[in-house]
Order: sequence, then C-alpha cells, then structure tokens
Amino acid sequence: MPTIEHYDVVIIGSGVSGLKAAHILKHEHKIDNIKIFEARDRIGGRLKVSEPGYHNHGYDMGASWHHDILINNMFHEESQRKDGPYRPYVIEDDSFSIIDYESDKSLDLDKNINIMPIFNELISYLSHVNSIGQDASYKQAVFNYINKMKSFLTEEQQINILSLSRYTELWNGDSWSLMSGMEPVGGHFGRNALVDQFGLYVNKFVDDGLKECVELSTEVSNINIVADATNNKKIAEIVTSDGRTVTADYVICSIPLSLLKKSSENSKQQGSIIFNPPIRESLTNALSHISFGSLGKFFFEFDSIKWDLTQSRTIILDHKFPEIIEAIKQFDSDQNLTIEQFELMEKLSTEKDFNEIKCDEYPYFVLNVAKSFNIPTILLLTQEPLTSSLELKSQKELFDFFKPALIRILKSYNCDKLLSFEPDNSKSIPSTEIHLKNIVHSTWTSDPYALGAYTSVRAGDAFDPFIEESLKGHQEIVRFVGEAFIEEGNGCVWGAEQTAIREVKKIIEHDCEIKLKTSHI
Amino acid sequence: MPTIEHYDVVIIGSGVSGLKAAHILKHEHKIDNIKIFEARDRIGGRLKVSEPGYHNHGYDMGASWHHDILINNMFHEESQRKDGPYRPYVIEDDSFSIIDYESDKSLDLDKNINIMPIFNELISYLSHVNSIGQDASYKQAVFNYINKMKSFLTEEQQINILSLSRYTELWNGDSWSLMSGMEPVGGHFGRNALVDQFGLYVNKFVDDGLKECVELSTEVSNINIVADATNNKKIAEIVTSDGRTVTADYVICSIPLSLLKKSSENSKQQGSIIFNPPIRESLTNALSHISFGSLGKFFFEFDSIKWDLTQSRTIILDHKFPEIIEAIKQFDSDQNLTIEQFELMEKLSTEKDFNEIKCDEYPYFVLNVAKSFNIPTILLLTQEPLTSSLELKSQKELFDFFKPALIRILKSYNCDKLLSFEPDNSKSIPSTEIHLKNIVHSTWTSDPYALGAYTSVRAGDAFDPFIEESLKGHQEIVRFVGEAFIEEGNGCVWGAEQTAIREVKKIIEHDCEIKLKTSHI
Repeated sequence: MPTIEHYDVVIIGSGVSGLKAAHILKHEHKIDNIKIFEARDRIGGRLKVSEPGYHNHGYDMGASWHHDILINNMFHEESQRKDGPYRPYVIEDDSFSIIDYESDKSLDLDKNINIMPIFNELISYLSHVNSIGQDASYKQAVFNYINKMKSFLTEEQQINILSLSRYTELWNGDSWSLMSGMEPVGGHFGRNALVDQFGLYVNKFVDDGLKECVELSTEVSNINIVADATNNKKIAEIVTSDGRTVTADYVICSIPLSLLKKSSENSKQQGSIIFNPPIRESLTNALSHISFGSLGKFFFEFDSIKWDLTQSRTIILDHKFPEIIEAIKQFDSDQNLTIEQFELMEKLSTEKDFNEIKCDEYPYFVLNVAKSFNIPTILLLTQEPLTSSLELKSQKELFDFFKPALIRILKSYNCDKLLSFEPDNSKSIPSTEIHLKNIVHSTWTSDPYALGAYTSVRAGDAFDPFIEESLKGHQEIVRFVGEAFIEEGNGCVWGAEQTAIREVKKIIEHDCEIKLKTSHI
Repeated sequence: MPTIEHYDVVIIGSGVSGLKAAHILKHEHKIDNIKIFEARDRIGGRLKVSEPGYHNHGYDMGASWHHDILINNMFHEESQRKDGPYRPYVIEDDSFSIIDYESDKSLDLDKNINIMPIFNELISYLSHVNSIGQDASYKQAVFNYINKMKSFLTEEQQINILSLSRYTELWNGDSWSLMSGMEPVGGHFGRNALVDQFGLYVNKFVDDGLKECVELSTEVSNINIVADATNNKKIAEIVTSDGRTVTADYVICSIPLSLLKKSSENSKQQGSIIFNPPIRESLTNALSHISFGSLGKFFFEFDSIKWDLTQSRTIILDHKFPEIIEAIKQFDSDQNLTIEQFELMEKLSTEKDFNEIKCDEYPYFVLNVAKSFNIPTILLLTQEPLTSSLELKSQKELFDFFKPALIRILKSYNCDKLLSFEPDNSKSIPSTEIHLKNIVHSTWTSDPYALGAYTSVRAGDAFDPFIEESLKGHQEIVRFVGEAFIEEGNGCVWGAEQTAIREVKKIIEHDCEIKLKTSHI
C-alpha cells in the first residue's frame, strides 16, 4: 500500500487569504508541511493584473483599492515597508462629481437642488432608521425614504435623490432591485487608497518562500473527514479532480463564496467541492441567505491624455423617473409602502427588456486613471445584471454601448473632441479627434472559479447569521477564509487577510488543545 | 391645622419638558390636579425669544433648530399641523463654507488641500476607532488622529484639519480642551430645520389649557419625601423659597442639569434644591461625571442687507498651529501620544492669558440669517470659555472684539463696504458703508436658572452611566426630565419632549402598580 501524502495544513486556493494563511503558518508558526492547491494556472485569485494593453500597462481586474485606511492594517504595513510599499498607491478621495443625465451639469454643485445633505440623510435613513424588513430591496427602501420625507423635499430633489441613490449599486456591484434595503452601505473607516497593479501584491508571499507549496492547475473535488484511529482525532482527506488523494490535519478553504454556495447545494459546477459528511444544514441554510455581486471593470484606453486631470472620481447618473415621484404623491407618508404600492412603482421603474438595454439605464462610477497614474485611460465600473451581459461582449459592441457615457464623461473633463474607436488606425490623429484604442475588462462573471466579484447582501439575505455560522467552519478542521467571511472589511482585500489571521489562530489553538488531550491519555 | 394643598403631580420648571409633561397628563390621562412652579417670571426655560431688536424682530436666545429631522417626531407633528406649523421653519442645510484664517479663502473648495474627506475620516476616527480613554480631551484625540495618519496627510492638510477639528466646539458649545475625546460628535439623523422664533413654541401648551397651572416667580427650595401613613405610600413635600409647602404624589423635576448638579453637591446656589433624603450617592457620583456647555449666540443687526444670500452657513477658522504639526513629526505614529508628548503640544496651542483673548483665537459658526428669514442680521455662535466672558461685555466691547471676524464674514459674502458700529447714527448711510446698529445676545452663563446652555460630555465624564442613573429618578416618585436625560436627542428640544413622554408613562405605570397593591390590601 503506497503511503498517502500527509500535510499539516492543506490550503485550497492561492488568493490573498490562502497565501496569507500559508505565510503566517510558515513564518510565525514554523509550520512548513503545507500544500496549496490552486485550480487556476496562476496564483492571486480575484487579485489579477491584465495582460499589458495598448499602453503596455496592466490593469487590475480585481481589487483596486485599499479601503478603510484608518483601520486597514494591511495598508499600514504596506506603507511602512522599508523598501517602499509593494505596489504604489495614491489616496484619491476628493469629492466625487455627479453628472446629471439630462443637463450634463454637475448635480453636486447645483445650489438650488442642494443634493448632498439629502444624500447624507438618505444614508442615515438606510443605516439607522429604516424598518422595512429584510425581504425588501434597496430600491424599496429608497422609495420609502422619499415617501416619508416628501414634505421636506422639492419635487426636483425627490427626482434627483432617486437617481443618485443608485450610486450604491457601484459599491456593491449589484442592482438596486436585488440589494437589501437593510444594510446597503457598510460603515467605512477613513479614506481609500487607489493602488496601481494591486494584483501583483500576492507575489510578496511566493517571493517569501511559498513558491514550492503551490500546486497550480489542480482542482480539489472532494473533502472527506475521516477518523484517524491511531491518533484518536479527525483528519481530512482531500481528493483532487485528477484522482489524487492527500490527507491533512487541517484544511483552509479559500474558494470564493459563490463556489462554496454551489458546494453546499451539491451542484456539479466546475470548481465546487463535494463535502463528506456534507456541509451541515445550518451552514447550508446560512449560505442560501447570502449573495454574490458582480462589479465589472472596463478600462478604456485612449490615444493620449486629452482631458482635464482635476477630477478623479465621477458618477454618471441614469435617466430619471418622474413618474415614480408622481406616484409617491398619493401615498401616506407615515407608513412604509405596501407591496401593492411598491409593485405599482416598480412597474414605472423596471429596466427594459434585457436584450434592449441601453447605456443610459444605468449609473456608472468613473475613475480618471489618467489623473492618478498618468496613463491615457478611463475606468468605468458596472453592476449586476449589466456586468454579466457586458463581460461577454466584443470590444466593438462595448464601444457602441458605452459611447454615450464616454462622450458625457469626456465632456465633463472639458474634452469635446470627436470620439471614435480606432484600434487599428495608426495614422496621425487630427487635433479635433480622440481615439479609443482598446478596452480591457474583467470577466469574473464567466470565470468558473469566480462566478462574480464579491459578497453582496441581497433582499431576503441575512448577513449576521451567515457570518456566525461560517465562522464555525466545517467539522472543526475545515476553516473558511476570504473576503466573504468577515464583517468589518467584508468584500475587501484587507478583510480577506484578516480572516487568514483569525483562522490560523483558531487552528493553532485547536491543535494545542488536541495535543494537551493526547498528552493526558 | 390648615389643610396642605395636595397635587397629583407637581412640576418644577415650565420649560418645554415640564410643559409637555403637564400637557400629556392633562390631555391624555385627564389628570388636572397639577401645579407647575416656575422660578422665572416667564415660561419657556431655555427656549426664549429676545425683546424686539433694531429691526423690531425677536431672536432666539435658546434653541434655533429642529435637529435630526428623520426621527424628530416633534418636527413632524409641527409640520403637519392643519393650521400650519406653530413657528415657521426653513431647512437650511447646504454645505457649510469654511473660511481659512490666513487666506480668507474657502478652505472647503481648495482642491489641493481637499479637506472634507479628511474631516470625514477624523469624524470616523473619533466615533469608531479612537481608543484614547475617557480622561482624554477632544483636542488630545485630534492630536492622536493626526499623529496616527500623518504619513497619509500633507503638512498643509495636517495644519488645516487641526484648525477645522475645532468646528465641533460649536456643536457642543464647549472648548476642545474640555470636551471628551470619546463621544464628541453625536450621531445625527437627517438634516436640520432652522426655526424663526422657536421660543414661542411653548405658548402652544399654555394656549391649550395649562395657563392656570403655572405659578411664575416661584422658586422651589426643598423636596422632602415623606411617608403617607394613611395610604401606605411615599409622597413628596415641596417647599417654595417663600416658605409655602404643598404635597404631591409625584414630582417632575425639569431644572437644568447645571442646577441638578449644584443640588446634588448641596450647593447653596440660587435655584438649586435641597433634597431630603439627599440624592443617593450613585446618582450624585453620576452627576459629577457629566458637564454643561455654554453655546453663546450673538446676533449682529445691520442697517440693511448689503451682502450675498447664497451661503447660509459658514465656519470661520481660528489661527493655525504649525508648531504643533512640527512637534508631531517626531512621535511614533503607532502609539497614542503620551501625557508628556501631549503636554508639550498643549503648551504650543494654549490660548493666551484670558484677559487678552483675541477674536482670531477661536473658530465661529456663522449663520446668514438674512438668507433664511430676510432680516439684515448675521448670527455668530460661540463656545465655552469664550461665551462666559463675552456674555458680560457691552455692545461696544463686543463690536471691538468681533470686528475682524465680521469683516471676514462680510467679505466672504462679497461685501467689502466699510464697517462701523453706529447705534445712534440716524443720518443717511453712504453706499460704501455698512453700519452695525445693534447686537442682541444670549446671557445664559450669568442666568442663575441656566448657568449655561446644555449638556456637554467633557474629558473624564461618563455619559452612559449618567443616563442610566438619572433614569431611575429620585425615591421613585421624583422624575427628571429635560434635554440632558436622554441619549438620542440629547441637548435638543425634541429630546427634551421625549423625556417628558417617557417619564409621564413611568408615573402612570407606577401609579397603576400602587393602586393594584392597595386594592389587594
């Protein structure tokens, strides 16, 4: 009988949380007997830099920001490295400019509408006052806010706050119809630092002695928890999809939430894992009440920087819904809207047939990459369900779709040159024109090992119970890490790192307990 | 033996909380046998409209705003009255303009300094991150923030955020050296509505059948809790300073926190009450760990409106402390500052000898009353310890003190006419001049029945234990109401009303219990 390979810890996935866990095990706890199975042919998971584009620059397809810099230890560590931070960053946190759909003017600067105090009031309502219940959507919560406060908002303010409320879609990468009305805006702790090529961050781990542990292109298909009679404890049997079996005292499972959900549903989805014994009912149930959003990233590379570099962040609003505001007039402002009232309003605001989606039916978050990193590029962020549809399109189709938005953005940057898509045109460019040369974009929604971007709390979801259940792990010796499994820092790289720190600590403590018990026997 | 007057409830103080309590007792519970003792010769307490000024308009010396309009029931009730609100209001909540001391420019609009995201980060630090402990001051907490984040702030940003942090003084009416570093910025729930002649609000209660209950110019000197043997319960004996004694089943005590603190210290202060039995030790201790601030209000009446009406709220910053920022450079950013480091910085920032105070050593909150209510008036708010000093000065002295600030404010409103104080000059005014005609201001700090403005949480205070203790009342049958005795809405008129609603409910419930017990005997 051949000896089965045995590891102290097997880590599934070489994203930031898996690598961070391995790094702590190796360097802080001197545990070297580690194996990392990575399904893809590269490390990094949802941290990824694209192939060099037209300007020979790679763009981040995953995380781009250090968020919450007040409490983000990872950011502070990075910034204090004696050899400089691993990746350059820039704190780009000026007030965002909000471009009105109809007028193309800056809504945030309009003294008559005076929208920002109302936006802050809406956030306060959603975070502290809202009593709408967990089944209601973010959109419904916004309708309720406008209805409650309509006596103290002009009609113009009501119409505009409804548009602006959708800004939150671009934080969550999710539709206002899907997102929860209860916890749509997580607490943020301090400013944000934009990172150039954040995807290379994970290299610091492999550069630091972890290279040999990682086995690329190796998918894990099964995790079986079996009794190790000799040592009177449980161990894990990890089976890869090419039929190999290894055992481990502990498993750190860093597959994305999307795949863990599939696994708990016993889906035959590529990348999902069959657990034996199966994931317990309470965790399966908790996983069915948490969702996954799809932030899309579209980098538009132009021939050269032909626009102003004064504004780094811009929001382009979608078209307006005066009919909804008209409908709200009739409702009692003392009550939450009824299902019937909401359905009536929903009819007035529903996106068109999805085959006919138009650019102006969605808001976009725009980043003037040229201002931050001196590259002739503009980044647009999109949300689900738009992302899924756009990530499959050709460059030509994307240009046709985004063209109206690009023109409006360039105009807001004081550039009214004639825009055209000229990927192959190498002739000299007239001074009255601006040429889009290339579009680099994310493909997370069609990536079987991602199935989206990061955690989103949707209507009907229950975030706190999900966290509570997932923190218990599976059969004690399988621990979950990643952006999903934490409250503060959820959806963020630094949050993912925190889960690695937390779960390694649990493993070390658990192992000490086992050893103590054994020594007593 | 003459029969002693007996009341179901005696209320001490006819401010908004005392009158609201009486109103609920009378109208909701049909309890008519009420007496309200009021030490002053007028009702209203710290809600007060001044005598008509130069423009024949009365100004609010006390509260001017409905705060927290998302959850402020009083505001919603007022706005829904069929005969219109009792007092007109206007939601003035545009972004405040911040006038830099040195340049007289709008700091908030300076794209290079980009101060507002940093201000928001500071607020987030103070509210959620700060671990400085309850003995530290707000100023110390701000120093700690700057020290922690100095790597991510330019020197200019550090200097300016230090100045701007003092804005909070004008919310609390208190000095940054005195205020607590732990809870300096209460949660705000929605926008604010500025009210014209808010002081008249209390008239609605007396107009509604309470006039006969109020006995003006009658100070209460003693509250004795005695046994009512006949009914087997406690009752209260209330002695007025003119020697009269009445009894009551319940006492609602609405004297300001400042006077309740004096009472618990057995101070012989005018307006303080001798309790027998004395206030219990736990409450006395809690009262010694809560403070009272002194927001000052100075209305400057000009000959006519000669300035722009675009900006309603402005903050004038004080001079800067580059020496402090220089000192911070040397400290370790990973640690809270030590007492020694703090004392070093404190020396660099301490206000001059108090006899030589200068206008530019303090920030001011400025309200363009002309914009809101079409009166040629500008309001400046001041904080302790400045308020105590200024409230005693003559108009001429006040003009001399405030002149530099007034010139800067008018300049920011695009008015650079020559300013002079001309209370008695009735000649026609040259078009190049603007004349200050009159100053109307608060006098709360020297008013023995106020001794300041409202609750302030200072370094060394403990807010939560204070609330917990004060909610228990005194000897069960004495209940405390007013702006101080509540968490949400603390310091606000609507908060004061909420305490009246809460304490009347407790009295009614307690009375039912007593009656149930008695019926069993």
